[in-house]
Amino acid sequence: MNFSSKLIEDAVNAFASLPGIGKKSALRLVLHLMSQETLVSEQFADAVVNMRKNIKTCEKCHNLSDASICNICNDPRRQEELICVVEGIRDIMAIEDTSQFKGLYHVLGGVISPIEGVGPSDLNIESLIERVKTGVVKEVIMAISPTIEGDTTIFYISKQLRNLPVKVSTIARGVSFGGELEYADELTLGRSIVARIPYHKPGE
Amino acid sequence: MNFSSKLIEDAVNAFASLPGIGKKSALRLVLHLMSQETLVSEQFADAVVNMRKNIKTCEKCHNLSDASICNICNDPRRQEELICVVEGIRDIMAIEDTSQFKGLYHVLGGVISPIEGVGPSDLNIESLIERVKTGVVKEVIMAISPTIEGDTTIFYISKQLRNLPVKVSTIARGVSFGGELEYADELTLGRSIVARIPYHKPGE
Repeated sequence: MNFSSKLIEDAVNAFASLPGIGKKSALRLVLHLMSQETLVSEQFADAVVNMRKNIKTCEKCHNLSDASICNICNDPRRQEELICVVEGIRDIMAIEDTSQFKGLYHVLGGVISPIEGVGPSDLNIESLIERVKTGVVKEVIMAISPTIEGDTTIFYISKQLRNLPVKVSTIARGVSFGGELEYADELTLGRSIVARIPYHKPGE
Repeated sequence: MNFSSKLIEDAVNAFASLPGIGKKSALRLVLHLMSQETLVSEQFADAVVNMRKNIKTCEKCHNLSDASICNICNDPRRQEELICVVEGIRDIMAIEDTSQFKGLYHVLGGVISPIEGVGPSDLNIESLIERVKTGVVKEVIMAISPTIEGDTTIFYISKQLRNLPVKVSTIARGVSFGGELEYADELTLGRSIVARIPYHKPGE
């Protein structure tokens, strides 16, 4: 693309360096900001820098947080005997959106993946064990992606927790609500038959 | 979406205020910046604010520019007797990418559209007439979108230029190169038959 202005070129390249934004989309964004007041661009830039500079990691659950302890860990209405283990903070947002979970979280920061060189020590597993060892936690729910790496991670953590007085569970897997059987992948469909749920017993 | 952090929420909303970026994409961009050094976010923000604050409009052609006269108008190798009239600066970039035009430009800033309340006085038409009146310009090429508003604008400008010693032309319209006839819209195909180009004469 042929920019006659170095300033525009720099701004376009800045946007285009973000994932999923090409040069043409970047130019559209830049021209949009051009059509707005200078203040809009300044507020936009402030929000980005402010977030990046001041964001913290929650000391308890490793969620991104404005303070040293996140809002969820700080909320007295949440059940601290229940910990949901997730890979990243996007998973926390997705679960929070369902309003079905009232416990606390623990962010691993990924899954064990020997191919990508991620071992157990690269994840926040040690701090999870410490949290469980305090004795307050009664159940650890593994909300990890159903992949080989995810299953490995669940297996590793459950082994570490074996000798502690805590229940370990995983989220239910099967065919999605509203999903059609014929479009479900083989693995999901196969496992959903093996792990079928009792509906009613004869004579009930 | 449920953000446990106000800082992240602000940054996501900042990105989501841009055209074509939803909350989920905005979150992906924010988390990408989170995974990078603080410097990356600062440079990104600087490029945006710097562009918005320091960008100028070329006094001659109304192109966006780093200085009061843009690079194209300032280039002595460009033919100043040729002016290409365009709606916006994106059109300049598209034409520059073809490397087929060596004249100067004139950005109207839109087209005449009574429905959207855009009249001739809202566009940079007066300054175009002034440029032509200097006597240097020999031809004005209208590179305006082939819409009703575009045609109205071309008609209006050509009327204003009628008494000046300047040739007015429009860019060629027809079926695209590599385009298939059956997929061309009726108007384009119809006009391309009416405005057919002589190929060879009998006996040639």
